[in-house]
Parts: sequence; C-alpha cells; structure tokens
Amino acid sequence: MRNVTEDNLTDAFAAYLGDETDPRLREIVLSLARHLHGFAREVRLTHEEWNTAIAFLERMTEFTTHERHEFILLSDIMGLSSLVDMIHSARGGTSSSVLGPFHIEGAPDIPFGHDMKRDYPGTVLLVTGVIRDGQGTPIQGATLDIWQTAPNGLYSSQDPEQDTYSFHGLMTTGADGRYGFTTVKPVSYEVPTDGPVGDLLRATGRHAWRPSHLHFIARAPGFRTLVSEVFAADDPYLDEDAVFGVRGDLIMAYAPQPAGSFPAEGYALSGKVDEDWEMVEFDLVLTPA
Amino acid sequence: MRNVTEDNLTDAFAAYLGDETDPRLREIVLSLARHLHGFAREVRLTHEEWNTAIAFLERMTEFTTHERHEFILLSDIMGLSSLVDMIHSARGGTSSSVLGPFHIEGAPDIPFGHDMKRDYPGTVLLVTGVIRDGQGTPIQGATLDIWQTAPNGLYSSQDPEQDTYSFHGLMTTGADGRYGFTTVKPVSYEVPTDGPVGDLLRATGRHAWRPSHLHFIARAPGFRTLVSEVFAADDPYLDEDAVFGVRGDLIMAYAPQPAGSFPAEGYALSGKVDEDWEMVEFDLVLTPA
Repeated sequence: MRNVTEDNLTDAFAAYLGDETDPRLREIVLSLARHLHGFAREVRLTHEEWNTAIAFLERMTEFTTHERHEFILLSDIMGLSSLVDMIHSARGGTSSSVLGPFHIEGAPDIPFGHDMKRDYPGTVLLVTGVIRDGQGTPIQGATLDIWQTAPNGLYSSQDPEQDTYSFHGLMTTGADGRYGFTTVKPVSYEVPTDGPVGDLLRATGRHAWRPSHLHFIARAPGFRTLVSEVFAADDPYLDEDAVFGVRGDLIMAYAPQPAGSFPAEGYALSGKVDEDWEMVEFDLVLTPA
Repeated sequence: MRNVTEDNLTDAFAAYLGDETDPRLREIVLSLARHLHGFAREVRLTHEEWNTAIAFLERMTEFTTHERHEFILLSDIMGLSSLVDMIHSARGGTSSSVLGPFHIEGAPDIPFGHDMKRDYPGTVLLVTGVIRDGQGTPIQGATLDIWQTAPNGLYSSQDPEQDTYSFHGLMTTGADGRYGFTTVKPVSYEVPTDGPVGDLLRATGRHAWRPSHLHFIARAPGFRTLVSEVFAADDPYLDEDAVFGVRGDLIMAYAPQPAGSFPAEGYALSGKVDEDWEMVEFDLVLTPA
C-alpha cells in the first residue's frame, strides 16, 4: 500500500502478514498492532514522546541480565502479569498470582516439619495446610515449591549474604496431603527501583511496595500447576500491591500463639521454641489438568 | 484494591497514579495500560505466550547497542514510527516519513553541485529541487541533511568499508532556494534480519525490503523541521515497504537522460559525465513552525 494513512495503517499491517502464518500468532500480532496503533492515535503520540519511549526501552536493556529481569518487572507493575494470571486462573480452585522475577529452579527437597528460619532473627512462623482436590480429598504426592525473602526483604538471588537456596524449599505431601514448615514472617518489600521501572514508578507518583507474602508453586499429577502467593491479613500494602497480585482468597491471618504452645513433635523446631510464635493455616485447592 | 479482577484492573491501575503526576504523562500511561490490558484480554494471552514475549524482549537487549537500534526497528516494522509521523505530518507541506535508525549527526557541509558518488559504480543520479514555503516562495538559508545507502545497500554506519560520512551531506540553499547534488541511484535493501525483529518478520511471513529512497531532513528558521524520504517510482517494493514509510507525494520518477546532456557547469561532475545519467527533481514545501 503506497498511500498508508492514519486510518488504514492497521489494515496495511494485516495485509503484510503471510498466508502461512500460524493462526494464533496472526491473531496475537494483529491484536497487538491494532491496540498499539489505537494507543498512539488516542494520545496523539509526538515524536518527542516516541523518542522518550525508545530511550526508556534502550535503558531497559542496561538493567536486563540473567539475574535481573527488568521486563518482567515492567510487565508486573503495568498489571500485565497479573492480568494473564487472572485470565487463566482456574475456577473452583485457589486463585493464582504472579510468579515474580525471583523464582529459582532446583530448590532442595525438604521433609515435613523442616525449618527455613535457621539463625535469622524474628518471630517463628509455622506454615501448614492441606493440598486438596475440588471435592476436598487430600492429594498425596503433591509438591510445594516455596520461596520468600529473608527478614531484610531480599531474595537469595538479590543478596550476596544468603546461600543460593536460603528461604527456598520443595516439600512433598504424604497421604494426608499436609505440608508444614517453620520460617520467619515475610516482610513487605519494595520491588527494585534503581532502574527504568523505578523511574516510571516515581514519575507516576507510585510506590514500589509489595505486601508481605510467601510464594509457592503447587504441582500434582493430573492437576493444573498452581503458581500463587499467601498474604498476611495485617499488611498495610494489601490494597496497593505495586504488582496487583492480591486476591481475596490468598489473604490469611497469621495467628499469634503463646509461648509454650509450639507442637511438641513433628517439626524440626519442636522442643526448641520458648517464645511467642505465629501460625498460618492455608489449604490449597487444585483443579484438574 | 485487594480484589483486583480482569474487569477492574485498569481502574486499579488508574487509582495507583499519584495526584502530582504530570497530566500528559498520566494520559499516556493510562491509555497505554488500557490498550495493553485490552490486548491481553482480547487474545486471552497465556502464560506460555507471555513467557515468549518476555524472552523476545530480553533477546532485543542483546541486539541493542549505540549503533544498532533494534527497538526503533521494532517500532518501524510494527507501523508505530510511521503512525507518529502521520499523526504529526503538517497539512499543506511535503509529507514526512520515518527517520529510520541510520541517521548520524554531524554530516559535513557540502556546496551546491557536490558529488557524493565519487568512485562508486553505478549510474550518475542528479538530484535537485527547490525548498519553498506554502506560498511557493523559495526559502534562502534552508539546510538539507541528506543520507542514503551505498550501492551495496548499506549505510556507512553499517559498513566498515565506507567512511563515516560516505553518502551523507548537509547543503544550504541560496537565494533561489535550490539544492542540487550528484550521487548514485539508491537501491532497495532489507532492514537487518539477524535479530529478534528478523525472527518476527519471518514468523509472520513478512519480507524485510524497503523500496529504494533518499533520506533527508529539511530545516529553515521559522519553519517546521521536515524529516522525510524520496522514493523511486519504478521500485518493486513501493506497495509493501516493510516500515510503512511510502506516501504518494514522496514518489518521484528518476528520469533517464542521454549521454552528453549533463549540465556543463554548476556541478562537480560537470564536464566529466560521458554516459547516460538520470535526474530526479523534487521540490520540498515547508510549513510554518
């Protein structure tokens, strides 16, 4: 088309796509072009603003490494990551939530009752629950891949002071479907703000805080894999998670427990907790694959 | 908002923006979020597809350098660069077209009649025209920043065999508003296809060809700067420019001229052209700033 105009550009784009293009790819690319063109027309995007956008994207490249996924962070703070989760969240099961950029593969197997807190300061938190199917039947042999920040608000991959798999573990359920471990209460933290995503947050008057949470991925044969998070009911950032990850059914009360009431057996810390502690019970419901 | 849903996500995003946010930035970011969310909802974007998109963006970073602007290329082949041009093309003047990623600052001043062809093979092309205002009055002291590929289809910044400013020049008009120089006829060429943009073109069955063109930026005090291109009327890719840059008024016939008819004076090549040559006359109309 030699007379491309503002109005026929998207049609010209569509006409360029080859007949052999995978139908799903064609659908995605055409929808993306239509929305991109619609955006530019709607705001009457100027050359100067376009230059700013290109400079922003080129700066994103400076902050992108194997350990630092600035584009995932951008997707997170724009709400795209959460939207993809919500679009595909299984009805009838526990809500999914964002994976985030800090999951690492190869977390070590940990037995029931394992302690992830070790010598880190803070209140002991006992986390337990049952992984069930939609009828309430416990699932045996389900795996729970768990990760969270240390009390300093940093994941092991961000923190040279931590071991690779500090506050990471992979637990497999027995016949009762139950998981249980001790850790420290996760803390609210800010997503990284030293890069272009931080600049964007500041320019738009947004903060970078995420409410405290435990990440997990639950897997079991015959069920859909569930990527999600558990949030603490008393967190001040529940209503303004920078990455839009909070869902009503993922908010749990972390219940204070008096000194002396820690389970006498079954946990690595049994017999070793003399102070007050806290407990969160969180059952997970998986849906068929 | 602790119960973000597919339907209220864009509202939640809007609610996050600070009251002090620059109004124009707010307009742009909100429109971008609305279109991004609309796109993901429309195609029901899956996690796997989102992963593919993130991997694509992270691969973009590997191809982005000071000399290689893969994000500009992506904007070009998606039609965004041309759309910004079209939105802001001045009515009543020569159409603007894409700047492209190959413009370099600091092109040397060249006098009227300069020869850019030098010892490169090919037919001599004489390019001339008058830079005028909307009433047809020639503009004195206008500058024309010109650049094109060598006969091998490469810009000097892409080609270690060329000098920095090979096929680049900056000409200033005299009282008659006229510019004129000799060069070689530009050739059709492919935009770079060795990176992720090339992968995208191949996956969607598109070619990477641009019809042959001369780039220019025309500037004059009191007038809007015009970034544009001149295309050859006989080019096979006029109707399918990979970057959507062709406008009807930018297509010019390159007229064949018989041997012996080259101007006897006024050009560096005067008296030195014994063969057939070609000529393109292209007047430019600038609009008030």
